[in-house]
Amino acid sequence: MQSKINGWTRAVQLKPPSLKDNTADADRLVAAVRSILQIDEFSIDYSILRDLPRHLRKNDFTTKCVLFKEGSQWALINLVKPGKQSSVLGCAIDLGTSRVVLRLIDLESGRAISETSFDNPQISIGPDILERIHFADGAEGLKTLNRLIIDKLNQATDRLCKDSGFVKEEIYLMSVAGNTAMTHLFLGLEPRWIIREPYIPVTNRPGLIRTQEIGININPAGRIFVFPNVGSYFGGDVIAGILFAGLHSSEETAILVDVGTNAEVVVGNQNWLIACAGAAGPALEGGVTRMGMMAGSGVIDHVTINRETKEFVLGTIDDESPRGICGSGLIDLAAELFRAGMINIQGKLVPDACAHRLTERHGINHLMVLPAKKMATGEGLTVSQADLDSLIRSKAAMYTILETITESVGITLNDLASFYVAGTFGSFINPRSAITLGMLPDLPLARYKPLGNSSLEGAARALLSTESIGEIERIRDHITYLELNVNQDFMNRFSAAKFLPHTDASRFPSVKIPT
Amino acid sequence: MQSKINGWTRAVQLKPPSLKDNTADADRLVAAVRSILQIDEFSIDYSILRDLPRHLRKNDFTTKCVLFKEGSQWALINLVKPGKQSSVLGCAIDLGTSRVVLRLIDLESGRAISETSFDNPQISIGPDILERIHFADGAEGLKTLNRLIIDKLNQATDRLCKDSGFVKEEIYLMSVAGNTAMTHLFLGLEPRWIIREPYIPVTNRPGLIRTQEIGININPAGRIFVFPNVGSYFGGDVIAGILFAGLHSSEETAILVDVGTNAEVVVGNQNWLIACAGAAGPALEGGVTRMGMMAGSGVIDHVTINRETKEFVLGTIDDESPRGICGSGLIDLAAELFRAGMINIQGKLVPDACAHRLTERHGINHLMVLPAKKMATGEGLTVSQADLDSLIRSKAAMYTILETITESVGITLNDLASFYVAGTFGSFINPRSAITLGMLPDLPLARYKPLGNSSLEGAARALLSTESIGEIERIRDHITYLELNVNQDFMNRFSAAKFLPHTDASRFPSVKIPT
Repeated sequence: MQSKINGWTRAVQLKPPSLKDNTADADRLVAAVRSILQIDEFSIDYSILRDLPRHLRKNDFTTKCVLFKEGSQWALINLVKPGKQSSVLGCAIDLGTSRVVLRLIDLESGRAISETSFDNPQISIGPDILERIHFADGAEGLKTLNRLIIDKLNQATDRLCKDSGFVKEEIYLMSVAGNTAMTHLFLGLEPRWIIREPYIPVTNRPGLIRTQEIGININPAGRIFVFPNVGSYFGGDVIAGILFAGLHSSEETAILVDVGTNAEVVVGNQNWLIACAGAAGPALEGGVTRMGMMAGSGVIDHVTINRETKEFVLGTIDDESPRGICGSGLIDLAAELFRAGMINIQGKLVPDACAHRLTERHGINHLMVLPAKKMATGEGLTVSQADLDSLIRSKAAMYTILETITESVGITLNDLASFYVAGTFGSFINPRSAITLGMLPDLPLARYKPLGNSSLEGAARALLSTESIGEIERIRDHITYLELNVNQDFMNRFSAAKFLPHTDASRFPSVKIPT
Repeated sequence: MQSKINGWTRAVQLKPPSLKDNTADADRLVAAVRSILQIDEFSIDYSILRDLPRHLRKNDFTTKCVLFKEGSQWALINLVKPGKQSSVLGCAIDLGTSRVVLRLIDLESGRAISETSFDNPQISIGPDILERIHFADGAEGLKTLNRLIIDKLNQATDRLCKDSGFVKEEIYLMSVAGNTAMTHLFLGLEPRWIIREPYIPVTNRPGLIRTQEIGININPAGRIFVFPNVGSYFGGDVIAGILFAGLHSSEETAILVDVGTNAEVVVGNQNWLIACAGAAGPALEGGVTRMGMMAGSGVIDHVTINRETKEFVLGTIDDESPRGICGSGLIDLAAELFRAGMINIQGKLVPDACAHRLTERHGINHLMVLPAKKMATGEGLTVSQADLDSLIRSKAAMYTILETITESVGITLNDLASFYVAGTFGSFINPRSAITLGMLPDLPLARYKPLGNSSLEGAARALLSTESIGEIERIRDHITYLELNVNQDFMNRFSAAKFLPHTDASRFPSVKIPT
């Protein structure tokens, strides 16, 4: 009997039956795999039995087993042609509220084959989570939302396979990382209580789902692993991020910040993990501030202001004509305004410094960033004092959360060996600008590490080893969730953080305060 | 938190969620059940999650859990209304080649509710196993056989429930005991290799199947437990018999004999079990000898011959007009013929003693049992010398098997504290007659214990406790299978057993040999 140890599959050569060794086909196979894996308990999917006699006899009792491990329990989910004649694939999914990304992976080699992405079709119901959850309360609401994402995923999976020369039946495992609400809608689970006190998900550990149970069209014997949540406001996407960053396995203490509509923060190392979630503020992502928008082509993500001429140099994503500004662009802009003395330490626009760019509408100051003629939209881009106030509140909230969570475990922000920033926000933000505003602590820039799409990367990592699912469950169970109490202490810290960069400027030695 | 320990269900009262205790609904439920059952690993069916939030809130966080245990792993398969407002039923099935019997059971009280039975609809394809297996080889053959039994079972289950005031969705567990071939046809598994050397079933441990996988219409979350086989010729029906007789749990050594087309024999006690199977001969059940037929209304199952007048007194099942004779009737007849001196110790018809009842056709003696006018069929019932020769071979084979298996473990037939006889054969056979023929050993009659439908009783027992499935698997794994080698030793024993009662008459002290 030979075996090749390479994760999800095992090549098995069975001794053909004889009168002296006439146990059943399935029992013979189970005994061989048990001996290879050196395990006791091992189950075999019923669906395998239907073709088992034919499959074994056609291939001279040689086969390749597609295996799966759930907790301590192994299962044989399919048999494929031995050797290189068959592919065993996985599909990792970042199930974002706005954007869904799929990556096709060869489970045997671990190699990424290709990727695709699409806008979450639930956006047609509502751009944000809240609207979708309210819609789910209505008749057929949940079913509609669920069908939208499942159908689109099925189409995308099918296309992704075809474009790479595979068929969807070759996918045996799918891993899905999303926030708690997106996970519920994907699973067709009632999201109603997620947003209502005391904020109760249906489940925090969806675990392994069979494809038929939710209508995902991959191999019928396939499994879908859905990342667990810590709670209603700390979802599987962040757990995927922790897995990818390796926060849970490092000796050094690090922090991971994932900023979307909410901010999720987790601090820890191999011995402990502490997490919290808080509304970091609407100014950091599009949809709420008037001109705010998601990162995308033509969105301003980079701003420089000439100290002398006060000329604005704007960079856009993909170098397209400017269409608007995103959270990270706004942070860059605000930091540059501060450095140029165009806003003061309270974040207020300074009329003298802003000069001709300043106009007043309805008693509120507006700063002209780009005139209508330079905009792809044909409308001028302005930032109002209200927008800036909102940004200041957000940055203050972020800093206060970071201060609170580190203090809760008795360390300071300076003790953090790495500062991981997740999500699109993390990819575009300029840490220098965020430090200038006092949003992020004044650490050496080398400690700031953008993670890119850590939700997708974590989902992909879940497919790389049969041990990953256990590892993910251990991360989840290891996290202590810190309920953020907005008490007097918190409010005092928050008030102090509302200045640029901070009331206590000594915390930001690298930031030169303009005079 | 309260609990009621009664097998398959547990009443659970959850602490409602609060801001200080805001874990997910499913996680709250899992924690509660874990604590009640005092177990670590415990899974929850995905289907439960869909209605979980509504169910818990509608019933003030009180519920009744329908649980299932597979190996060491517990699963929560459904939630029902708390208290007496809901029924949790099981259905035990004796899946016979000829007849299928169903018993509806209340899983909470263990009470049998009602029973029904039907002829196995696969009889329309072929009355015996061999024909059906050959038919399964043809295009759509297996599918046809499978649909026949599944459809009929679904109809019967539905009717059984309705007649007792229940609905089929209240059945959560089905246990199925049948021989290896019937089990394969029920599961839609290829039976081809069962009858071909080296006689390989697809599986010996079908274990737990989900209802949807084989199209059984009970509660969609239900499970089907299929009794394991020892091999192609020792099936789950006999394992059910062992469970029912308690062979595996008794201090005293006992034997169980199940006679159909084949005979399965198992000897043992709580420490060991040894089994074998052999063709006991066609004469013991209908279908092969010319007049042989299955037990049923109007079938002669009891024969007395007046020693003086040689008058035959025939008893029929249900006291209906005679239609034929079954295996046990034939044994009774032969024993009486022997006692009356109408057959000699070689089993040959004695012309003088048989007198006018004897006729010769094609050079073979025939004995008139009942003239045409007394038969419901209008045809006379005769037994030929060939029929009797066949019976003698069968009885000799049976005795030789019993001798061989006991000798293999170093005991004598007299050491058997109980002699269980299973199946319809067991219900009708007269042990006194079988001893007279030397078919069964000359034990005190009190040791002979007919088991009735032990396959059904065993299947019912599987539903009485969450521990039964583990017990059944232990029985199966505990059995040592003895391959009967028809060697010179066996043939010598067989030849000696071909006399009535035996060449060595001292083995049958209670049998008076007529002179």
